[in-house]
Amino acid sequence: MNLKKFISLALFSLFAVNIQAQEGYELWLDYKEVQDRTIEKNYAAFLNNVDIIGNSSTIQAIKEELQLAREGFGFDDSETGGDSKLIIGVQSKLPSSLRNQAKTENLEEEGYNITSLKNGKTILISANSEVALLYGTFGLLREMQQQNDISNLKIEEKPKIQKRVLNHWDNLDRTVERGYAGFSIWDWHLLPELIKPEYKDYARANAAIGINGTVLTNVNSNALILTPHYIEKVKALAEVFRPYGIQVYLTARFSAPIELGDLDTADPLNEDVKQWWKNIADEIYAEIPDFGGFLVKADSEGQPGPFQYDRTHVDGANMLAEAVAPHDGIIMWRAFVYSEEDPDDRAKQAYDQFIPYDGNFADNVLVQVKNGAIDFQPREPFHPMFGAMPDTPLMMEFQITQEYLGFSSHLVFLPKLFEEVLDEDTYADGKNSTVAKVIDGTNSNKKLTGIAGVANIGTEKNWTGNPFGQANWYGFGRLAWDPYMDSEEIAQEWLRINFSNEEDFVKTMTDLLIESREAVVNYMTPLGLHHIMATSHHYGPGPWVDDLGRPEWNPVYYHKADKNGIGFDRTSSGSNALAQYAKPLEEKYSNPETTPEKYLLWFHHLSWDYEMDNGKKLWDNIALHYQKGVEQVEEMQATWNKMEQYVNEREFKKTSMLLEIQLKEAKWWRDACLSYFQQFSEMELPAGVPEPEHNLEHYKSIDRPYAPGINPSW
Amino acid sequence: MNLKKFISLALFSLFAVNIQAQEGYELWLDYKEVQDRTIEKNYAAFLNNVDIIGNSSTIQAIKEELQLAREGFGFDDSETGGDSKLIIGVQSKLPSSLRNQAKTENLEEEGYNITSLKNGKTILISANSEVALLYGTFGLLREMQQQNDISNLKIEEKPKIQKRVLNHWDNLDRTVERGYAGFSIWDWHLLPELIKPEYKDYARANAAIGINGTVLTNVNSNALILTPHYIEKVKALAEVFRPYGIQVYLTARFSAPIELGDLDTADPLNEDVKQWWKNIADEIYAEIPDFGGFLVKADSEGQPGPFQYDRTHVDGANMLAEAVAPHDGIIMWRAFVYSEEDPDDRAKQAYDQFIPYDGNFADNVLVQVKNGAIDFQPREPFHPMFGAMPDTPLMMEFQITQEYLGFSSHLVFLPKLFEEVLDEDTYADGKNSTVAKVIDGTNSNKKLTGIAGVANIGTEKNWTGNPFGQANWYGFGRLAWDPYMDSEEIAQEWLRINFSNEEDFVKTMTDLLIESREAVVNYMTPLGLHHIMATSHHYGPGPWVDDLGRPEWNPVYYHKADKNGIGFDRTSSGSNALAQYAKPLEEKYSNPETTPEKYLLWFHHLSWDYEMDNGKKLWDNIALHYQKGVEQVEEMQATWNKMEQYVNEREFKKTSMLLEIQLKEAKWWRDACLSYFQQFSEMELPAGVPEPEHNLEHYKSIDRPYAPGINPSW
Repeated sequence: MNLKKFISLALFSLFAVNIQAQEGYELWLDYKEVQDRTIEKNYAAFLNNVDIIGNSSTIQAIKEELQLAREGFGFDDSETGGDSKLIIGVQSKLPSSLRNQAKTENLEEEGYNITSLKNGKTILISANSEVALLYGTFGLLREMQQQNDISNLKIEEKPKIQKRVLNHWDNLDRTVERGYAGFSIWDWHLLPELIKPEYKDYARANAAIGINGTVLTNVNSNALILTPHYIEKVKALAEVFRPYGIQVYLTARFSAPIELGDLDTADPLNEDVKQWWKNIADEIYAEIPDFGGFLVKADSEGQPGPFQYDRTHVDGANMLAEAVAPHDGIIMWRAFVYSEEDPDDRAKQAYDQFIPYDGNFADNVLVQVKNGAIDFQPREPFHPMFGAMPDTPLMMEFQITQEYLGFSSHLVFLPKLFEEVLDEDTYADGKNSTVAKVIDGTNSNKKLTGIAGVANIGTEKNWTGNPFGQANWYGFGRLAWDPYMDSEEIAQEWLRINFSNEEDFVKTMTDLLIESREAVVNYMTPLGLHHIMATSHHYGPGPWVDDLGRPEWNPVYYHKADKNGIGFDRTSSGSNALAQYAKPLEEKYSNPETTPEKYLLWFHHLSWDYEMDNGKKLWDNIALHYQKGVEQVEEMQATWNKMEQYVNEREFKKTSMLLEIQLKEAKWWRDACLSYFQQFSEMELPAGVPEPEHNLEHYKSIDRPYAPGINPSW
Repeated sequence: MNLKKFISLALFSLFAVNIQAQEGYELWLDYKEVQDRTIEKNYAAFLNNVDIIGNSSTIQAIKEELQLAREGFGFDDSETGGDSKLIIGVQSKLPSSLRNQAKTENLEEEGYNITSLKNGKTILISANSEVALLYGTFGLLREMQQQNDISNLKIEEKPKIQKRVLNHWDNLDRTVERGYAGFSIWDWHLLPELIKPEYKDYARANAAIGINGTVLTNVNSNALILTPHYIEKVKALAEVFRPYGIQVYLTARFSAPIELGDLDTADPLNEDVKQWWKNIADEIYAEIPDFGGFLVKADSEGQPGPFQYDRTHVDGANMLAEAVAPHDGIIMWRAFVYSEEDPDDRAKQAYDQFIPYDGNFADNVLVQVKNGAIDFQPREPFHPMFGAMPDTPLMMEFQITQEYLGFSSHLVFLPKLFEEVLDEDTYADGKNSTVAKVIDGTNSNKKLTGIAGVANIGTEKNWTGNPFGQANWYGFGRLAWDPYMDSEEIAQEWLRINFSNEEDFVKTMTDLLIESREAVVNYMTPLGLHHIMATSHHYGPGPWVDDLGRPEWNPVYYHKADKNGIGFDRTSSGSNALAQYAKPLEEKYSNPETTPEKYLLWFHHLSWDYEMDNGKKLWDNIALHYQKGVEQVEEMQATWNKMEQYVNEREFKKTSMLLEIQLKEAKWWRDACLSYFQQFSEMELPAGVPEPEHNLEHYKSIDRPYAPGINPSW
């Protein structure tokens, strides 16, 4: 091939690459060409001269990743910088001269150092395990993706939480409960033979942000996953994930001993049942020695559990814990429980069911608690269980998939939501006992810690549907590693890596991301309103719904709007859910005047003309918040339209189209909710809030039976 | 960027391109780099100097396609060949000097010429419509993809069938009935706002093979698709497809007038019902002026239809035909009907129900008939309706998705199957009245003609899951254009375009493709056996199933194995289905001695020791065919392993993994069926056929409730 021909070809190839990258499949592992020649030379000098100690599959993964980075960044193999060198090795295998340069005593198994030595001519990544070296490698590449100065690195990183897992609510038929990015990436039918490239790329992406576990199956679980036919498939995935430090977990259906046809009881204190689960565990561990354990949803929303046998959560969890304990497995036992018989405020029930058992769970049990006491709302006060079980390790459950936040078409930057929860003070151990400190074990010095994110991943070409959905997966991983990280920092990192390092872009878009969370609160559930979404799929507004089988499934249960006002009285004059919080909070939130406005209607039922801080009536404030939410989306659109120069064409267009949907739906929310509430307030809309386009009957008549994410088995 | 840097970058870019192409997303529009410098220069000279007359969206599509081809082939813009030129124009707009060079009188709307003029220095693509120019452009590019000589082109092409449509059995929840390539590519929830790039690429791929219609929804249909909420979404797709000459069709649920809440009857002779459908048609055509019409499955497998009102298929079809006739729409009325009350041979029922109405259907009705009288089996004799309704246009329905042929994991080249059906002689109008002549209108000179393929397309990154599934989509399109085309020629075309023009590869793999169809017949249903698949999902063998609600749903109904023998007696001593065929066939097939062995047990019940042509007993032949099928898959594996050099890495590996599944399942079929039938034959397996690995109880116990492709609404 002559040079001219070659260059011509190369030009066309660049075009094709562009199209590929534009789909977003690469996630944050898109090592974009480094344009600045000085930076490029500097980075290339290190990546082109690498010493890696070892030869395991994890070391192999590090080598492959470095090669992909070299290719993506555009480094020519011949670019070396004299004696520049990158050394990667487990501490115990390093030459002693290097070993003393960067101590790893405090890094435990997963921490790493990235240290500049010899006046910056050598970069050393050291750690106590190979997986930690992989984390360190990704850490260094992240610096390069952001084009940071690497001349004097002294990074010491160690995850603050041990079990950092994704929860996939994926069914065996590949539907995904609350999945808005297509269908399950686990192609069970063709496993174990067909190993799709996606499986490895999933592992790479997760390892790059420090996620070390994945629950493959839905919490509304299917016992068949425990049969040899499926374990063989799970094993195949586990083998792909292992080099990347990712453990596989499954959901355990409590009634499995009966459903798989072996026993006629699932009583956790029955010896045969205990033995049955031990056998299952043994069978799984024989195939998957590093199997993580089970996640269990029991006695919740129709799932079987120990209650049927007059046993407790402790009985159930500890029985399973015993089965996996010999193999170092753990049980993640969900606290998302509420009873159809219990007429008490749903927000109180999990606390009431679990608190009495504090200290009774086995050492390898984590109680997994959703961030709020209801269910993954646009905004909730932190769950009162956090801080209230000093002798029980509580695992945080966030939802990355946007069940109640507009599905995958709404741009909502969730790290901002996660951060808000993590930063809340529980006062459990005096002032500054934040939720983060509860779950990372600082409070009460817990030995087992964990955090889970319900995944937003599916078969969409870019994994998450909305290009910005990737930021939520990314941000969850970063916060799982360090729950004290600032959401703005996460936004900046992701924007730089994913789109552009141009400061104008990064600054403007960081502001947009940070504000996006408040926007969705405003146009859906401002001022502490919650759970007023349409039935079942939770797509769109449904504040009028009052005819569902269980009271606490109805939106009217949550907003309690009537002629006298709106809001859920959770003070002592109401459900007294407030009593579940520590005294300082209870006192503060008991009085509407001292309650933060963002939680106002969560804790108080107030009259429509209740006067708020801004001097305006509650009704006016509600209406203005809805309007503000719509305007925020309009601003997001305007901002995005200015970003075209920084973003590839396909993602630019796709985001523009999705923002169209978001704006349409923000208006739908505003108009439907205000039409509905206005019946009770009987007050005019304040200036600046337009009359709804349609009447209330129109909004009530909207029916979307095929909105995605509904479990077909329901 | 300096040159060195540029070249380095380019090299890495090529690597990345490779990965993209390796996923197979590009289908047959992957314009691979032309390596031969002479050929490349020659092609580039034409594609770099193009005159296109016009500026419509279709002309725009032609320009875009040529640009993509230039980029893919690797043509440098500067490569021109002096006065080499490609001219593309509708005949009436060409200068008169050119108009006389290539006549288009006989090309009708969709035919095209590709003609070399001026000693080969000019290539002219001419036609009577712009869509035909697009077909011609794809035709020329196909020549280039195969690196054919283009110095003296005189191609005149015109489709022999008018309506060439894909049938998507896609549900509104994105599940796909009998879908084995993921889920529906129609993302209804995000339409009409989100227009995915896939929609356009789908249109390009179809136009490239001449497909001009697509039925978006499942024949087991949902009335909601007819509501304005969905029509708006359908319209958005229609607008993407329109420049590519692809009309959109929908399935019409016969009971829609009731289900959508407007009427209390769906009686096709009721005036309100007629008016209701006219209104629906008017509403759709107001949004989509080129809407194609409706496909209807009525009074079949539980679908509503005219029978409930004591009306006929004619009443139902003609009522709908009247509604769409003012808009030039058509009705495709399916003949796949069999009754649970009718105890007669299921293979006979469609014929009996339809033949009496020959000549009674409205002019814009096509009766859509599956290729065989049962249901898309690995092999069936042609459906006796072909040739038996001289005054009714019959539309062929093939199934591209492999419901009964191993799903997407089995490599089976279906054009070989399609060709076998099309080439069969119906004797309807004397000798040589092939099925092809029935459906292309040659016989009886029918004015409306059509062919449908049930799509194998889904959300998989390469559209079809199995890389070779693409060949079946491609081949269906080519045969729809020209039902007389040779399946070997199709195989060669596709192999060249998709993988490599190396003769060794093309020849070897053509043989493999052609043989692959006989392999699946051998290991599933040799010698005329049929419908012995497992229940519901049809995944794997289930010859023992005898407990389903309706007799004709049970495999035992079809093979009738007992101590005395095996096979379905469809001669006059049995169901006499044979009487539905023309005399020469009836006579030939009445005698097992003159019945082609491939149909033997379709038409005859024979004793296990019946002696066949090879001197061996029937039992031995059955067993040897099963064994042969397994060996054929083993040979396919061996052949494939030699092809690594010609195929990209990802598709090579993927195919290898899938062949592993195919081999495992071929053995499963062989062992399960022989174990089962051996109970009745009570004969030893012949030499060369290994004993089954497990006993019959094992095979009967295999349960795969989550095999893909089951309609969740069932």
